[in-house]
Parts: sequence; C-alpha cells; structure tokens
Amino acid sequence: MKVAKFGGSSVASAEQIKKVASIIQDDSDRKVVVVSAPGKRTAEDTKVTDLLIQLGEDLINGEAYQPALDLVLNRFQLITDDLNITNQVVQEIKSDVASIISSNYSDQMKLEAIKSIGEDSSAKVVSEYLKHIGLNAAYLNPKDAGIIVSNEPGSAQFLDESLDLLYELHKREEIVVIPGFFGFTKEGKLVTFSRGGSDITGSIVAAGVKADLYENFTDVDSVYCVNPSIVENPKEITSLTYKEMRELSYAGFSVFHDEALIPAVKAKIPVSIKNTNNPGAMGTIIVSEKEVRGNPVVGIASAKGFLSLYVSKYLMNRELGFGRRLLHILEDEGISFEHTPSGIDDMSVIMNENQLPIEKEAKIIERIKNELHPDLVYTERNLALIMIVGEDMDSTIGVAAKATEAFSRVNVNLEMINQGSSEVSLMFGVKEEGVDVAVRSLYEAFFTEA
Amino acid sequence: MKVAKFGGSSVASAEQIKKVASIIQDDSDRKVVVVSAPGKRTAEDTKVTDLLIQLGEDLINGEAYQPALDLVLNRFQLITDDLNITNQVVQEIKSDVASIISSNYSDQMKLEAIKSIGEDSSAKVVSEYLKHIGLNAAYLNPKDAGIIVSNEPGSAQFLDESLDLLYELHKREEIVVIPGFFGFTKEGKLVTFSRGGSDITGSIVAAGVKADLYENFTDVDSVYCVNPSIVENPKEITSLTYKEMRELSYAGFSVFHDEALIPAVKAKIPVSIKNTNNPGAMGTIIVSEKEVRGNPVVGIASAKGFLSLYVSKYLMNRELGFGRRLLHILEDEGISFEHTPSGIDDMSVIMNENQLPIEKEAKIIERIKNELHPDLVYTERNLALIMIVGEDMDSTIGVAAKATEAFSRVNVNLEMINQGSSEVSLMFGVKEEGVDVAVRSLYEAFFTEA
Repeated sequence: MKVAKFGGSSVASAEQIKKVASIIQDDSDRKVVVVSAPGKRTAEDTKVTDLLIQLGEDLINGEAYQPALDLVLNRFQLITDDLNITNQVVQEIKSDVASIISSNYSDQMKLEAIKSIGEDSSAKVVSEYLKHIGLNAAYLNPKDAGIIVSNEPGSAQFLDESLDLLYELHKREEIVVIPGFFGFTKEGKLVTFSRGGSDITGSIVAAGVKADLYENFTDVDSVYCVNPSIVENPKEITSLTYKEMRELSYAGFSVFHDEALIPAVKAKIPVSIKNTNNPGAMGTIIVSEKEVRGNPVVGIASAKGFLSLYVSKYLMNRELGFGRRLLHILEDEGISFEHTPSGIDDMSVIMNENQLPIEKEAKIIERIKNELHPDLVYTERNLALIMIVGEDMDSTIGVAAKATEAFSRVNVNLEMINQGSSEVSLMFGVKEEGVDVAVRSLYEAFFTEA
Repeated sequence: MKVAKFGGSSVASAEQIKKVASIIQDDSDRKVVVVSAPGKRTAEDTKVTDLLIQLGEDLINGEAYQPALDLVLNRFQLITDDLNITNQVVQEIKSDVASIISSNYSDQMKLEAIKSIGEDSSAKVVSEYLKHIGLNAAYLNPKDAGIIVSNEPGSAQFLDESLDLLYELHKREEIVVIPGFFGFTKEGKLVTFSRGGSDITGSIVAAGVKADLYENFTDVDSVYCVNPSIVENPKEITSLTYKEMRELSYAGFSVFHDEALIPAVKAKIPVSIKNTNNPGAMGTIIVSEKEVRGNPVVGIASAKGFLSLYVSKYLMNRELGFGRRLLHILEDEGISFEHTPSGIDDMSVIMNENQLPIEKEAKIIERIKNELHPDLVYTERNLALIMIVGEDMDSTIGVAAKATEAFSRVNVNLEMINQGSSEVSLMFGVKEEGVDVAVRSLYEAFFTEA
C-alpha cells in the first residue's frame, strides 16, 4: 500500500486535479490519498487557506466576511464546474460556515474550524472526481480515519494511538481521500497542525498504515542539491537519507519541513518526492540507509539570520563548569542555541537571531558579565550558516580541503568551522553578504568539476 | 629595570654560571635575577632537585639519606671550586639539612624545605660569584623579597599582596639574586610551587617590580614554530603574543608552562625567551599585542591523548537544555572538557583521555543513557589535536583552505574541525597515528612554501 500526498499546487485547479486522478489511477497500490487545500494557480493567485484565514479574522473582528467567503465559494464552484461534477461541496461550505458562525465556539475554535475547510473541501472534490471517472473512492474525515491529536490549536501534535486506528484503513475497499492539516482531540475538538501541516498528515497516515512508500507530490521534479534560487538549474538528488534530508532542511532549504517527516522516519517508511506535473520524472527518494555510495556530498544548504555570542575569559578552560554555566544562563532565558565552537580561553554560542532580539541582548550580556566575570563578551550579528551534507563524507579525505578552497577562491572569510565526529555535515559560518557567492563556489567545486 | 630568570641548565655548572654572570654584567638594567636549581650537565646527569627529592624521601622513609646528600654537596663543592669562591654554601646545606632533620616539622614540611635547597643554594652561589667578579650583588631570600603564597605545598599560589612588597626591590642598590620555586605563607611557612616553579617566581617578580622586560634564559635560541622533535630545524618565532603563546602551550609544545606567565601577562610585562649559551641570538619576544603583521600562522602545536564522547539523539536541537545537561553530568563527575563540536542531532565532547579513564567510562555512559535517553553514545579514543595558531588568521582568507589541503595531501582524515569566532587558532582532530605526518605537511604548507 502506498500513501500519496498532494500539495496545494497539485489541487489548485480542475486541470491539476485531473493530473492527480490520473496518477492515482496509474497505480492500484495508491489506496490512501492525502490532500492540501487548493494553492496558487499563478504567482499572483491567493491560496484558499489564506482566504479562509481572512474570512475567520473578519468574522472574529466583526467585519464583513462575505467577500472572503465568496472568493472561497467561487474557487470551488469553478473547480467543480470544470471537473463536471456536482457543486455539493460549495453547498456544504456554505452550511458549514453558517453553523460555525451560529455555534457557541470560542473565537479560536471558530478560526480552527474555518481554516480546515480548505483541505476538507479539497478532499471531498478529489474523491468526488475519482468516483466520477469510475474509481471506487471515498472521502474520509480525519476523525473517522483516526487522526487523534493534542489540544494545541495551530500546532497540534499527533498522538501515538492514531497509528493503530489508521492501520484499520487496510480494511477499506475504496481509495480513501483524507484532508490534511487537521485532526481531532480525544474530546472531538478540531485542531490544526502548524502551517504546511498536510505533510504531517501524510506522514502520520503513511506510518499508521505501514505504507510501502509515502509519495509526496509537489511541483518540482526532485530535491535539488542546492537552492535553485542561488544556483541556476542545480543538479537533482536522486536519493538521500533521512539524516541528510534533515541536515539539509535545518539550514534553510527544503521541499517540506523536515519535522513533518518524523512519523514516517520512525516507522522507516521510504519517502518519495515526486512532481504532479511530471510524474514520470524519477524524483527523489528519502531512505533510512544509503545503498549506493557516490559523491560524498549530496547537498549544500545555507541560511541567513544567525548570530554569534562570543565570551572570552583568561584561563576559562581551568574553570570546571564554565561552559555549562554559560549554557545554563541561556536556557534560563529560554534561548536555544545551535553550536558552541570554542578556543582555549573563549567560547562562541551560535544561535538563530530570533533567539536573541536586540532588546533582550543587553540583559543577557549583563547576566553573563555578573555571573561569569568574562574578560570580553559581545555578539556578532548577520551571520549565515552553510552546511555541506553527505553521509559518505566521513570516509572521504579531502572534502574539507575542497570546501575551504572554494571559500578562499571567492574571498569569503570563514567566521566559524564546525565539524563534529558524526561527519554527516560540515558547517561553516560566514558573514551574510558572502553566503550566496560562497554557495555558488561550493556548488562548482562539488557538483560541476570533474 | 629587567628581571632575568635563569633555568636549570643555565646554572648547571661553573662554566654555565660564568655565562650567566657575563650576561648580567652586560646590561646594567638586569637588577633582579631569579635562578633555578642546577640542572643536568649532560643527558645522563641528574638534576639537583631530583637528588633533593631522593634525599627527602629517604629521610622520611627512615632509609639512608647520606648518599643523596653527598651527591648534592659534591655538586655544589665542584661548582664553588670551579668558580674559585668559598664553599660556604656547602657548609650551609649541611647545617640546613641537619636542622630540618632535627626539627619538629611534619614530613611534608621537611620535604618542602629540602626541595627548596637547590634553588636557594643556587642563588647564593650566583650572588657570591657576582660579588667575586666585582659586581654589587646580594642573595635575597623569597621571604625577605616578599613572595607570599598560599598554603598549598607543592602547588602554592602567589598572593596579590606580594606585588607591592616586591616593588620595594626598586630601593635596592645591589643586583639581587632570588631563588625560584618557593615562597612563604603569611605564617612564615616555606611552600613550593609546582615543578618548574622558578618560572612562576620570575614572572611574579617581574610583575611586582613592574619590569620593563622579563627575560627568561633557557638553553634554546627561541621558541620554534613547530615541535623540533617532529620537524627537523624548524623556523624560529621572533615575536608572538601572549594569546598565541598560550594556544601553542595548550596543545603540548612549550618552552615553559604557560601558566607561569600569568602574573607577567596580567601586568603586561613583555617576556623575552633567550639562550644563556647564545645570548646574542635574537630570541623570542612575547608581547600583549602584535605590532607587525606577518605570516598569519605563527606556530603549529600538537598533542596526543584525547578522546571524543559522541552523543546523538534525533531532534536534539529541539530539546532546550540538552547540551547543558550533558555538560552538567560531566561536571558532576569532575570531568573537564576541551571542546564540544556539534551537528543538528549530535554533539561530541572532546576531552583529555586522563579525564575519562576506561574504568570510569561505563558509569558515565550509563548516566548519559539514563538521564538523556540518547539514540547513540560512545567514545572514540586515541585522538590527537593539532592547533594552528596566529592572531592574524582572522584577517587572512585561505588559512583553512591551506591547512585542510595539507591534511588531504598526506591522506590524514579530519575527525574534527573547530574554529570559534576568536580565530586565534584553528583546531583539528585526527587519529593519533596520523598526527606527526600531518604536522610535517602543515609545516611545509605554512612555513616552507613560497
């Protein structure tokens, strides 16, 4: 059994939904389908979920919500018209919205319920169309599917008991179409995942049914070895491991949020990234363990917006617990960090800039001064991290040499180098203005040279 | 005013002491002299301090101590004979030892007093000889000089109040000769510094008198840019900063223990490393701040005997406090660490192998497993650290590239790379068997290539 998840662009229009149907028809193992809400049809278009958020906010603020609702209704009307199926879904949206409005729900619950309409209607449309073309298909509500979540509106976590319930899907004859993005608490309350949460639904369902493959259909042919907005037409990655995927996602470039993969990762389900618009393309497969060893480097990721908190104190290394006490202060202030490169008498803590806003900085520096009596403490902002990722790097001498040479060639100074003993990744810190040119130089070094 | 400290080889024989006298005579600013106990005259010789330790242990264990005492007496008799001065010092050693033996001192105090005889007698001989050649000189006991220390036998720490007392040396007309290696507690108890403690005395005295220069006379022309036992005839370092010196000393290669420098460092006294046997050689000067910027790399240091404790846990970076809790366990067990390179889901702690003996390892790993529930935890032993040091490295693009290329060229794999934001040093971890070949390759890259 395969679980196929289709993203927003894959269900953005009737034309796209026809491609989805054809993909499902093509492989009888595709028995479970998860869909997003209709996304953008063009760059200027608005996602249905954004229309719904507008609708919900207008409603809560006592403003006119009808314009936003009309846009949503028109969108689905157009889709059903073009698919030549009944507009039952449009009627249901109207009555759903009316009953939400007249309910005694809290504002938050109203918003949650309204936000879920995009995925829910999308699933109804897709299942309707599958039936229309003669397939045995059925819409399945997340509650009936068994997606049980924690009561954290907007960032629900799925509960493990979902898995056994989802396994029951094996008993279904039909192709079931499940809306992504939301689940229900044990008390039956509708709660959404974080934005992009349809990927989470897909991953949970794949884990629950113990799928042979979790197919994630998007609008790109594959995962690229470097961000296409930095390097033109970069090479595709045909296969990478979960660990590599996670390291790549971490530093900013990703097809989907790596956390969405967790349930599938834990269940060791292989994940395939495919293109709805070009389903014949090989795509990228994400596996637990790599079978074929090739280029030691599979990808290069980069992200801006980091800062370094630098602390130096003569004879720091004689002070048992200095590092621990520094990290304790940060933890105490709710600041999480990424890395802690250190010299003998100094230590830097690299963190995301959002962890230490300017207004909080003075307080932290004051605490460090008072509690640790350093000789020097300061922050350096506007840092970017670049990560070179590959599980085979540990066995290949010269990756670091090639990488540092690539930085040197384009005159980008290294503020930080961090390589732990795992050696799945090699991390570099540079000033933000140098990051793109460095990434291009690294790409050339690892992917285009003989 | 200059403070000149002469090491054991500089006062090992009459011939050497004549060189010392000539050096002192040569510069009227050399008003304060600190001396070690006579060291080895040949590779097979025994240091006077080792003879004294033997004497003390024989005495305490109730064994015959006369043989060791005779060796000490003979040594000084020979020196005074060859210098053509009275053998008063020999008589004083006899009576000092006799009074220590008949005292009601504890065994530890007896040992401390006996250990101090080498430096004390050496200072007496040198001052005697200076007077003999017509200089105005005087032996000065550390108590009278004002070297006040903590009551930690064998590892005394000097107390800050020494500094003001030592400044009074400016009032002396004579060249004062002070024995190194020991001081007195406020209660008047003789306590020694750690082994090699004459460097500490020299450094304290230089700080106390606010010397223009602290000259440390040894038996090498200068500090070398790499360990001469690894690279033949390495280049000399003419000037380096305290910070560079400290980084170099840290990773195993040093002329003297970097900690001895602390008092001089704090007082911002420049330190000159000179050769008693070749006082005309330029030597190496250690300063607070570098004036001339040259080769970005001043030296390469290496040391064996490190291990890496590797811990990985999926989603580690989401767990606020994970790193702090790991370091807390180590601190709790009294283990100090050097560095903590980290990936996203893993963290390594690099430490000296003596911090985690094999027999302690199982307990630590057990604690980490129980308290942090990692996916994986293990140690990797037999690691060596290599440090490339230079304060100008931060402004020079390409140092990392040159260094990693040097490793790659000799096929030595990098287990770890660590560069913090201070950028005074760049640290590499390699397996021990590769360290020497890597150091030679780095030396070629940074010091012999055009």
